[in-house]
Formats: sequence, C-alpha cells, structure tokens
Amino acid sequence: MTVSRVVELEGHIIDSGMMQACFGIVMDLDGQFDVEEFRVGRSKTEESYCRMTVLADDPATLRSIVHELHQHGANPADPQDAEVTAAPADRVVPPGFYSTTNHPTEVRYEGEWLPVERIEMDCAVVVHPADEVGANAATDDGPQERPWAETKVLNAVSEGDLVVTGETGIRVHPPERPREKRAFGFMQGGVSAERPSESTIAQIAEELQHVKDDGGDVLVVAGPAVIHTGAREALAELVREGYVDMLSAGNGFAVHDLERDRYGTSLGMDTETLDHPRKGHKHHIYTISEVIRAGGIRAAVADGLVDSGVMYECIENDVDYVLAGSIRDDGPLPDTITDAVEAQNALREQAHEADMVMMLSTLLHSVAVGNCLPSTTRVVCVDINPATVTQLLDRGSAQAVGMVTDVGTFLPTLADYVLTRS
Amino acid sequence: MTVSRVVELEGHIIDSGMMQACFGIVMDLDGQFDVEEFRVGRSKTEESYCRMTVLADDPATLRSIVHELHQHGANPADPQDAEVTAAPADRVVPPGFYSTTNHPTEVRYEGEWLPVERIEMDCAVVVHPADEVGANAATDDGPQERPWAETKVLNAVSEGDLVVTGETGIRVHPPERPREKRAFGFMQGGVSAERPSESTIAQIAEELQHVKDDGGDVLVVAGPAVIHTGAREALAELVREGYVDMLSAGNGFAVHDLERDRYGTSLGMDTETLDHPRKGHKHHIYTISEVIRAGGIRAAVADGLVDSGVMYECIENDVDYVLAGSIRDDGPLPDTITDAVEAQNALREQAHEADMVMMLSTLLHSVAVGNCLPSTTRVVCVDINPATVTQLLDRGSAQAVGMVTDVGTFLPTLADYVLTRS
Amino acid sequence: MTVSRVVELEGHIIDSGMMQACFGIVMDLDGQFDVEEFRVGRSKTEESYCRMTVLADDPATLRSIVHELHQHGANPADPQDAEVTAAPADRVVPPGFYSTTNHPTEVRYEGEWLPVERIEMDCAVVVHPADEVGANAATDDGPQERPWAETKVLNAVSEGDLVVTGETGIRVHPPERPREKRAFGFMQGGVSAERPSESTIAQIAEELQHVKDDGGDVLVVAGPAVIHTGAREALAELVREGYVDMLSAGNGFAVHDLERDRYGTSLGMDTETLDHPRKGHKHHIYTISEVIRAGGIRAAVADGLVDSGVMYECIENDVDYVLAGSIRDDGPLPDTITDAVEAQNALREQAHEADMVMMLSTLLHSVAVGNCLPSTTRVVCVDINPATVTQLLDRGSAQAVGMVTDVGTFLPTLADYVLTRS
Amino acid sequence: MTVSRVVELEGHIIDSGMMQACFGIVMDLDGQFDVEEFRVGRSKTEESYCRMTVLADDPATLRSIVHELHQHGANPADPQDAEVTAAPADRVVPPGFYSTTNHPTEVRYEGEWLPVERIEMDCAVVVHPADEVGANAATDDGPQERPWAETKVLNAVSEGDLVVTGETGIRVHPPERPREKRAFGFMQGGVSAERPSESTIAQIAEELQHVKDDGGDVLVVAGPAVIHTGAREALAELVREGYVDMLSAGNGFAVHDLERDRYGTSLGMDTETLDHPRKGHKHHIYTISEVIRAGGIRAAVADGLVDSGVMYECIENDVDYVLAGSIRDDGPLPDTITDAVEAQNALREQAHEADMVMMLSTLLHSVAVGNCLPSTTRVVCVDINPATVTQLLDRGSAQAVGMVTDVGTFLPTLADYVLTRS
Repeated sequence: MTVSRVVELEGHIIDSGMMQACFGIVMDLDGQFDVEEFRVGRSKTEESYCRMTVLADDPATLRSIVHELHQHGANPADPQDAEVTAAPADRVVPPGFYSTTNHPTEVRYEGEWLPVERIEMDCAVVVHPADEVGANAATDDGPQERPWAETKVLNAVSEGDLVVTGETGIRVHPPERPREKRAFGFMQGGVSAERPSESTIAQIAEELQHVKDDGGDVLVVAGPAVIHTGAREALAELVREGYVDMLSAGNGFAVHDLERDRYGTSLGMDTETLDHPRKGHKHHIYTISEVIRAGGIRAAVADGLVDSGVMYECIENDVDYVLAGSIRDDGPLPDTITDAVEAQNALREQAHEADMVMMLSTLLHSVAVGNCLPSTTRVVCVDINPATVTQLLDRGSAQAVGMVTDVGTFLPTLADYVLTRS
Repeated sequence: MTVSRVVELEGHIIDSGMMQACFGIVMDLDGQFDVEEFRVGRSKTEESYCRMTVLADDPATLRSIVHELHQHGANPADPQDAEVTAAPADRVVPPGFYSTTNHPTEVRYEGEWLPVERIEMDCAVVVHPADEVGANAATDDGPQERPWAETKVLNAVSEGDLVVTGETGIRVHPPERPREKRAFGFMQGGVSAERPSESTIAQIAEELQHVKDDGGDVLVVAGPAVIHTGAREALAELVREGYVDMLSAGNGFAVHDLERDRYGTSLGMDTETLDHPRKGHKHHIYTISEVIRAGGIRAAVADGLVDSGVMYECIENDVDYVLAGSIRDDGPLPDTITDAVEAQNALREQAHEADMVMMLSTLLHSVAVGNCLPSTTRVVCVDINPATVTQLLDRGSAQAVGMVTDVGTFLPTLADYVLTRS
Repeated sequence: MTVSRVVELEGHIIDSGMMQACFGIVMDLDGQFDVEEFRVGRSKTEESYCRMTVLADDPATLRSIVHELHQHGANPADPQDAEVTAAPADRVVPPGFYSTTNHPTEVRYEGEWLPVERIEMDCAVVVHPADEVGANAATDDGPQERPWAETKVLNAVSEGDLVVTGETGIRVHPPERPREKRAFGFMQGGVSAERPSESTIAQIAEELQHVKDDGGDVLVVAGPAVIHTGAREALAELVREGYVDMLSAGNGFAVHDLERDRYGTSLGMDTETLDHPRKGHKHHIYTISEVIRAGGIRAAVADGLVDSGVMYECIENDVDYVLAGSIRDDGPLPDTITDAVEAQNALREQAHEADMVMMLSTLLHSVAVGNCLPSTTRVVCVDINPATVTQLLDRGSAQAVGMVTDVGTFLPTLADYVLTRS
Repeated sequence: MTVSRVVELEGHIIDSGMMQACFGIVMDLDGQFDVEEFRVGRSKTEESYCRMTVLADDPATLRSIVHELHQHGANPADPQDAEVTAAPADRVVPPGFYSTTNHPTEVRYEGEWLPVERIEMDCAVVVHPADEVGANAATDDGPQERPWAETKVLNAVSEGDLVVTGETGIRVHPPERPREKRAFGFMQGGVSAERPSESTIAQIAEELQHVKDDGGDVLVVAGPAVIHTGAREALAELVREGYVDMLSAGNGFAVHDLERDRYGTSLGMDTETLDHPRKGHKHHIYTISEVIRAGGIRAAVADGLVDSGVMYECIENDVDYVLAGSIRDDGPLPDTITDAVEAQNALREQAHEADMVMMLSTLLHSVAVGNCLPSTTRVVCVDINPATVTQLLDRGSAQAVGMVTDVGTFLPTLADYVLTRS
C-alpha cells in the first residue's frame, strides 16, 4: 500500500541546501518523490519553489519522512491548525508533543500563524490563547489580547499548558544562505587549524565591532584556560571598554581570575614570570576561602579585596554574569549557582538576549549556552582542540566561525585589533 | 640573613622519587641544602633515611620550600602538635588553614599522631577531640572516646570545627614504588596510544578480577560515549555479573541508555544496524518525557517500561548509582541530582568506598570523582582523546593505567576477557 | 562591462550538491546568474538539467567563476576542442596548462570526447594523437590506432608531450549521490568518534567481502601503530586469507613487523605480555642490521630468518608491497625505496589498481596514496586522531567511511567479522 | 645460580633521576641490588657517588639489567677496553654491535677514554686507530695522529670499519639537572596547553637571544602550517634579522611560501583578506611549474620571479636550507632532495651544528631532525596538537620547552618580542 503526502518548499532552497537535504532524506528513508512543480529562482535574489508528492510503502515510513522533511523546511501543502493538548501535570508533556528545532518556527492557531517566541531546540511549544488567565499566562503583564506561542523546556511545563502535539500546523524556517559573502560562513562544518590566524582574528574583530555599532549584545562564554593561558588582562580590557555585555562562566573561571588578583598566580603559576610554579598550588583554595569570608565577589570588590581582572570589571561595569556550578568545583564561591536547572535558566536568559556569542575554551558551558541559542545567532568558537570546535559548530548556527587556536594569544590579538588598530 | 630548618625523609625515598623531588624543590625555590645524614637502603626491601638542613635567605622563602618539601614527604625533624583553630562560622575556615594533598596524612594532636580519615585533596583537616559533643561530632555514633581527625571540604566546615592551621604537626606519606612490577604503573605520567591494545585490556581484566576476588569495590564512571559507541550491552553485562559495585554518571548517560531500551537508538541512530540515522533525533527527548511521566527510572523499571541496559541492571542488581546533573542536561530525569554540592557529596561517598575506579570516556565526571580520591586508589582511565587521559592521570594516583582507545571496542573486549576467556 | 558565459549541468545535480555548489560559487565570487532552463528530475531516477548564463563585471572574474563551476560539473554549453600545446622540455609544462581534479574527466580532441585515463588530481592532461610514435607513445604496445588521453604528474612530462591548456573542451563529472543508501556515505565530511564501533566495523567487513566477491583489489596502507598496538596478527591473517591484494607502508612498519618476528617485541615492548618494556629498545636496530645482512626481506624469509607476520605473509602469498622511504627511517631496509619520486610512482600504480583502499593509522602514506586516487575509489580510513580522519576524508572520495578508533582493537574485530562471523 | 656485577654512578645522580631510574630498572627486570657504598653530595654543588652490586638469577637477565643501567649512566666498576670488530661488508655491522644512546659517550681504546664524536642515537660506534689509512680514515685531513671515535648510522658503515661490540669499555653520561632554575625545563615530560602563552613566548625569545649573543647556531624546522596560518612574514623577518642560521623543511613548505609570493595565496586562500578561498587551488601547482621552468628557487630569485618570503630571505641572507622530499610532494621543486638517505644526511649535518632547534608544526621533519640530535641540544617545540609536542619532547632532550599553541600567532608574537620589545 502506497501512502503519500504533498509538501512544499520555498525560498533560496537550492543554494541553502534544503532541496539537496530533502531529496536525500526521501532516498535515505526508502521513500519516493514525485516533483509536481518546480520554479527555480532565475537570479540570486529570486526565490525558488517546489511542490512534490512524497510516497512511502506504509504510514509509519511516510510519517518519518515527512517529519524529517519538515525539520528541513518542507511544509505540508495543506496547512491546518496545530493540535494542542493540555499538559496533564507539571513537568509532564502530553504524548506526541512536538519537539522543536532551533530554527525560526510558526504554529497555526485558530487559522493564524503565530511566531514561536524564544525558539530553542528540544523544547515543547506552548500556545497561550487570547485572554488566558491564571498561572499559565506566563507573562508579567497578565493576559494578552491576542494568542501567542513560546517554547518551554520540559521541566518548565505546567499543568494545563496547551502543548502542541503532532506535526500539523507548524512551519519551520531553516536559515538561508546570505546573498553575499560574509566573514561568518554559512553552515560551515569542517574546521581547519590551517587558516591564517591573524587575518581570521581581524575579521572577528570587525564583526564584533559591527555588532556593537548596531547596538547588539555580546555574550562571552569563558573557560578557566582563558586565565591559565594569560589572556585575563585582554578579556578584562574588552569588558572595561564595553565589548562584552554578558559573561557566562563557571566557578573555576572566577576562582582563577580572583586568584590572579590576590596572589598573581593561576593554579599556582605566576602568569607573568612563570616563576616558582610549585609553591602556589594552595592559592586557589585560599582565594575561595577569602571570598567566602567576604560574602561573595561583589562584597570582595566593595571591600577592596579584589581590584582587577575579569570579574572585577564585570562588577564595575555592570556586566551581567552567570557562574554556573558543576560537580568539579572547589568551594564553590557564594556567587555560583549550584542548581543545574536554575543555572541553565539563568544562562538561557543570556543566550536569548545575545546577538553574538563568543565561546572561549570551554566545552561544558559552550554546549549549555549553545543548546539555548536559535540558529540565527552569530557564534564565534575558539578552542585549541579541533574536536571541540567541530562539536560546537555542528549545533547548527547559520552564521558561525570556528578557530582552532590558542586562546592565550587569541584574546590579546583580538583586543589589539578592536582597541588599538581599528 | 640565612634561616634554616631540619627535615627528614624515610622509606623508599630514592626509587619513589621523593629525594629527587625534594632536592629539585630546594634548587627551584632558590634554597640550599646540607645533608647531615643519609643511610641508603642496601637492598630492595631496606628503607632509606635522610636528614638534611634546608637553608634560605629569608623566612618567606624557607616557608615556601618547607611547605613544598612537606607535600613530598619531607617532614620537620622536630615534631610538635598541630595548631588547631575554631572555624569562625559555617563554611568559613580560619586564615592559614592547612590544605590537604591526596596522600595519606597524619596530624599530631595532644602528642599523638592521628591518621586523617577520608583523605582527599584541597580540604581542611578537622580534629575532633575525645568526647566531643554537639553538631561537630560528625559521626552518627555520637562522641568518640578518642580524638580523631578527618578532611572536610570548605562548604562542609561548621562554626566551631577545630581546623588545623599552619604546617607543624602534619606528616604526609606520598605513595612508594611497589617493590615488584605491577600491571598498574607507578606514577606513570606519559600516555601513549601506541601500546598493544588487547594485551593491555587483558591486564586490566586481570586486575579487575583481582580486586573482585579480594572483595574490593569497583566504581565505574561512565560518559554518554559508552552508549553512542555501542558498548552499552558490554557494560550492562559487567554490571549484571557483579563486576561493578557503583556507577557514577550524568543525566545524559542515563537518557541515552534508556533511549536505547525504548527506541533501539542512541541520539537517534540505531546502534546495531546504523540504520536511518536521521529519523530518531527526537527519541531522547521522548525518552526523558516518558520517564518523567513514570516518576523516575526505578518506577519505569517497576512498570516494565524499561527492561534492559545499564540503568536497568543497576536497579535489578542493587548497584548504587549517582546521576549528577549539569547545565547541559535535557530534562533532567527525576533521578538526577541537580544541585552540584549535593551531587558532589554523593559521588564523594562513592569515591571513598571504591578500591578501583574505571573512568570511561567522560572528563567532567572523572575529574569530579578524581578530586575526591586518595592517591592510593587504583585508577583505570580510558578515552579516545590523549589529552583527557593525560589530564586524569596527572591527578596523582599511585597506581593507574591510562589507555587512549575506543570505548566502543574496549568494553566488549574487556567483558570478553573477564566473562569468557578467564 | 558585463561579460557572460553559458554553462550546463546535468544528472542528479540537486541531490549530489552540484547545483548548490554552483550557485554558491557564483555568489562567493561576485558574479550573477540567470537560469535559462531548469528541468528537475521528477523522481529519484530521473535526471535534472540546468542551463544558465553566468555574468561578471570583468573577464578575469568570469574566468575564475567558470573555472570553479567547471570543477563542480558545470560545463560550457558550446563545446570546442581542447587546446593542446607541446611541452617545451622534460618536466616543463606549457603556461596555462590544465590542472586536473580527481573526478572522471573527458577532453575533446578532433571533435571527439576522449576519457582521460588514470585520472588523479593536480596533474597535466597529455593527449596522444593516433599513430603517435617515439618516446611519448607512453604505452608498451607502441602507437595506438586512435587518439587517447592520460594524466601525467609534472615530473613525468616529456618534451613534446601534447599538454592540454586552458579550459575549453574539458568535461568533469563529479560523483553523484547513489540512488540508494550505502554503508559508505556519499561525500561525508564530519567524522564523529561517537558512532557504534562494532556495528561500523561489521559494515566495513561486509563491504570488504563485497569487493572481494566482485573480484576487486584491496590496497591496505598501514602505519607502524598497527604493529605497536598489537594488530599485526590480525592483519597478517587478512593477508593470508586473501583479503589484501596490495600493501603500502614505510620502512618503519616493516621493521617493527620483523622485530616482532625476531624478538617478540615492537619498539622493545613484548606485545603479548607487555613485559620488560625497557630491555628491548635495541631490537629494532638489530632487526634492521640482520635483514640488511641477509640481503633484504625476501632473502630473510627464504633463509628462514623470518617466518611470521605481515611482511612474511605478503611474500608467501604474492601480495605486492611498496615500502616507501622517509627521512625518519632507521636503516633503511634494502627493500625500502628511498627515492621519493620513485616511491610515489610505485604507490601510484597500486592506487590506480585498487578498488578499495584501507588507510590504517598513517597520515603520511595515506595522504600520498590519497593524492593518486580518483574520486570513485572506495576509501576506509581509521585513526585514533580525529583530525587525521577528517583530513583524509576531505580529499573528496565519493564513497568513504572514516572511523576514529583504536587500530589495535579495530583490526582484530574486523578480522573476526570477516573470517569467523560471516 | 646467582650472578652479579658491580656498577658505579657518580655526579648529581639523585636529583637528575639516575639513582631512581637505576633502582627501578633492577626491580622491573627481576634483579636484586646491594649498595656497597653511597656518598651523598651534601650540598647542591657537591656530587654523589654510588657503588652497588647487581644480582640476577641468570647471566641473560644480568646482561639485560646491566645493559639498561648502562644507558642510564651506571658504568661497570672495572673498566676494560671496548671490544672492536671489523665490519664484514659495507652497510653490515658485526653481530652484537653497540647501539648508541643520544647522551655524551666515551669508549675506552688502548687504555684511553675517547669521546665519541657526533653522538646520535641508534648508531654504531666506529673507532679510528692512530694513523689509520685508507677510505675509513673518514676525515678530509687524512690519518690522525691519535685514535678517535665517532658514530655511524648503519648505512654509512664501510667494510673494515672497527665497530664497537658488546658493552664493556663504554661510558654514557646522561644529562644532569642544572644547578639553577632555567627557562628550558630539565627532562620535562608532560606538556600542558594551559600555560601562560605570551609569557612562555617571551622566555623563548630571551633564550633565542642568548643563543645568538653567545654565537650559537639556530636551526628552524618548519612545516607548511607556518605558511597556511599566516606566519610567513614573521619567520621571513627572523631570517632577515639573523635569528635563523639554518632551515630544515620539505617541498610543501617551500611551495606554499613561493605561492604566497607569486599569487598572494597559500593553498589558494589569500592569507590577508581570506578572500576568494575557492579560486586559487591551482596556484600551488602553477608555482611549482614556474619554479621548475626557472631551474630552481635560487634561479627564480635571481630572475626576479620571487622577491619575498622565507625561501627568498634564506637565499638573500645565505641561510643554509635543506628541503627534504617525501612521497606526498607535488612536483617536486628542483631544490628538493628526493632521496631519503641523502636528505637525512643533509639534515644530520644541520642537526649536529645546531645549538638550538625550533620545531614548528611539523612532525615528520621534527622527528627526523630529533633523531640526529644529542641530548644536550636545546629544543623548542611548537604544535597545535598536544600529542605531537609530547612525542617530540619524549625523545630525551635535556633542555626542552614544548608549547601547544597556534604557530600562526606564535611566530608573530615571538618576532615582536625578539625584534621590537627587547
């Protein structure tokens, strides 16, 4: 028994790779296709259109294929309203709930296409009817006049939330290839260490400047290697000069940064003279103890205990910082959010506000932030380990640049380009 | 002004590297030494003894040197009681508190050397006087007749705890080189991928069998790659056959293991046929949702929802498991401990009970467990990334073996050696 | 001044990525396109066709664009004969010579499309007219009745060779996506360590069996790690059982293989007991010395000096082997070809005969072989270092599978699947 | 039956690790030791002395142990003349020949200790008697008045050469730990990416300056990544300013350097603007063709075809360069030495002349050069891959510093420190 479904694609579907992906999906999943209409964009700016019937031997196979096509921008040709089902309990989604991609998405509700707010992958979509009342209204402003939709992570779903189930009435918009060449490559997969380092840094500097000139927000996600490799002063300067709007890091990053201020060392090594690498290995635990005694980083700055470094500049310049706890933390500092869910929510807020994210030498925090990003956010990813860069860029940002380099020379060079040479 | 201090070393101090380290420390830190007595062990089993005066130009330098020597097993020749100071508040240690190494340690209290229980690095040492009463007694049995000492991490220190400060009255015993050759190398640093893989696995299998034959406890620390690479069944079998006493993992590990049970996939790929890699990427979020609905893993097993895999075998065979949360978790599952401090405490219990720890393809959890281990615990560390293996072995286990290999072939081969060939 | 050129594409140009690549090229290189005709293949087996005008602001830009398009399968719509120019001297090509891709290629000569034999990238194309006489005839059979064309590397070009220049009259056929799913992915870029290892090996075993069943030739390119990691016996068995038709390796591989036979060690370590890792580090230089004294490997086998291992099985089973020399060789063995050009020619012969190439833990030899392969040869690439696998797969084989795994467990598992389980 | 042998050690044998190594060897190889005399150096400058009897159950075990001890600086207490045996044929050493370490070595001949010249590991030692005549005299000056000894690689041994066999009459001097702290660590094994990058580069700059101030010779071993990552101008400047005395590289390095001069690209990418990454992939093959046509690099410089870059500066500043061929070369350039043995001999000359070697992003060439270095040469090793740095530093240089960093930022920063900031 052959079953079928008609889907449509439109936009820059050839050069953005959507057509290639969709044909490939059908073949990989043992289906057939029959292209009914195909209009190619004759020039760079003209869009293309494709309508095709997808065929499969059984409904389950067809469903798999259509599900996959859908995630790559092929939408059913006969739009209906999305199905919504009330969540049976807090944190429990109805069976068959729709799980999001990180691409811009719309759901059809009462005949109208609603953009899904705060798009992020692996979430449920919750629809808020017009004039919704009660706990589920989910905005501080109370009920809205018009219906709206948003993503919710599983543990944020409340009993009664209207959760989208199935796959009808949903439109996904994968990113399209920009019409002109950009510093930030389109869906670049492979990352090579063998690119001109200084020129690439110069381009990142330029892009950073553009984002700031346009009033955009820059989120820096930083690992302890930033401090160990001696790049602390360069990052502190970028914070002080206004190039960093938010900082996402862990307890370890902050401790090493503060240790450098208190003792001139990072993990016990003097980062300037490289002197006496041995004697300082207690400094980090002493630093933690002193900051705990002071009552936290902000108090330590206020008391004059700390007067330099990345954390200091964040506090002095009102840069929002989130220190997320982990099981390998010493201490931790009082500022560290030890609950993973709470910490994730805090960095989710940062992620959704950011126009550009710079991921610097941390896999854990970068993955966490990356999980919350829509595919439209600009991403810069820097790590000495090519596997880390590949893994982070694979998350599907449409505009990303990855560099396999030493953050200890990257940040001083970047600061030099941004602050001096431009 | 030259200041000086007399220190002593004894034991297998030459072949264990202590003498070399101590002479090196003095030279690196700009000191001088004057060896007053040196008796070399004439044969393999005879111990050596060294007494030397360490000299420096100023008290601060001398203190640094003596501090370092101390950590490498050189103890002051004139033992006095350790200084203890009451902690001024919860989580606040007195200034100058002694921060531990991961080597067996004793403190002198009222003229008597007390072994420090639950040794672990970067902790404070808390002394409990005889007949101590109140909250600080720290045992469920109430006051002890004799004084005793233990480590406490910073956030476990309570107001009034008697914390050791300074460095007098403390003896550290770095591990000594075993007198005979062992499968597990002594303080092996460098890790090479170019060792005979199957023979090395055979030796690990033998050591694992020895530990179990001696009634020892084996802790497995496992990352999601164990599941992705198809090694799930081999690990499940080792659990079922009693070779694993405790499991330390994260939310992701459990989710992927359960997804394999529910959908036959891991991150959406069928791990047997490698079929249809595309269609399953929602399986992990569905799995989480189903387990949440059931009320947790144990409930899901009880309900018959889950009937195979590593988590299943842990539950069926009463193997203690700790799932530590992190900021990159989806869900998380109800079993996941989301608070980092609470999770760290749970795995600290596991670490202190373990006689052998197998770290399998996870840096985060392995570092967390490694932080809690005394230097005397046997460690096996397996990862495809040589930098990870090096970092984990650098934490100073006296008996460790590292393998740069593919956990997806390592575990089946290990299970084969342990369960079939032996 | 706008200049333009009409190009055509045909075949499975959408799902093979050619259309996407070509549109991208025009945009990246600041050109414009005007699609004049586009016929989409309605079903999976029906081919598509595109004719478009490419426009640019100046002839140089247009030339760049057309050059790029050409390499991706877009050919000028108005075919003319290729230009040929006689090489002015040995090893000297005429300016503007056409440099090949690794895709099947044709050149038009006297109105006829000639397939270019022995296609390989970065070569010149030399046309041999009908009844060509003299040194340039380039076949042992003397002049051919009909004209033909072949690739020549720069240093093989002889004075008077008719070398193709410019880009007219040349057709390139990039590989097309197979119509059904295959074990060997189509143009897979990213390589992940997180795939099910045993299942992937099982698939490679199946593919290897197919190639042999079809009478194909298998070339193994092996590095010394094959021996160090203890996989020697598995590879020797595959040779003995007829699964390896050619071996490409270096002096070091052979020395370590022979050392294992002579002394039971590899780089001095007993690969079975891991015993006495220290005492054997002279074994490799002794082995070299003994084989030199015997007069070479074949003589050493004949003399009974060597009676096991990979080299032994190659000799006993008439498997062609090439040992290419390098500057880090000890010795070298008399069998090693020390001249790089001569060695490259020897492995070029192997590469052109191979239907499947297995690259095992050697970057140098794999790159050398990979450079000589047409894009249609099946490639398996195994290495513990993901960067190596990525670099090797990037060379553009249409049917390739990469595994980041331990060759010391890979080969025994592969041999098990091929020889026992199938 | 117990057999025994008396050995002696003297010097800074504890802090240089020799005693630890020797005790370990005896235990690992199932022997016993009996220390007969032990005098410890009381202060940092006073040497120590140990005489011990080594015992084993059989002569073969004893021989293994003594052989190993010997390589770590323990010499038999009863020196006799070394045995010498005439080589039976060219390239054929007598059985039982002594294979060298890379440490300074002496052989006793006619009652006198002769230093072995041109020490290098895995070589034979050839003794030249006083007034030796004929081909074996091995110096251009004809027979010497006094006997002397030198290393020869296997393929350089001539019939009749007096080759040292056995292990009597040979003294090895492993490097001793310097008495004061040095920028270049003593026998540092582990390499961490997490050191302060700029401070480490500053120290390397200082050491480079010292070597040049002392009239020392600097050998740079460079891989193509130096060009790809945009560090060409920095290296060219260091050559021009006299900081590089010799260059060791491959055909690929030179081609990419020359391509940058000719076309402004490296592997087709403009290293400044990163522009048009596609269109230039033929540039490298064109560059090769042009240099071949000119007759080589020197001729290309003379003709004005090439007027910038590393090769250009080498030629203009009379810096000796060796381009060693390999099987992955395109072309190759006429300057490339394609025979591996001849190329190895050329870089052997460089290695023996160098006081400091900088290994920059090439494993193949660095291993080749490293093989020829005595353990006393200073080594700097820079690579983005930690496994490469570890492998290169493991070769046993006494004074080495390894950096896991990006050569594309390393060289500009180094040049800045050396040329501007000092």
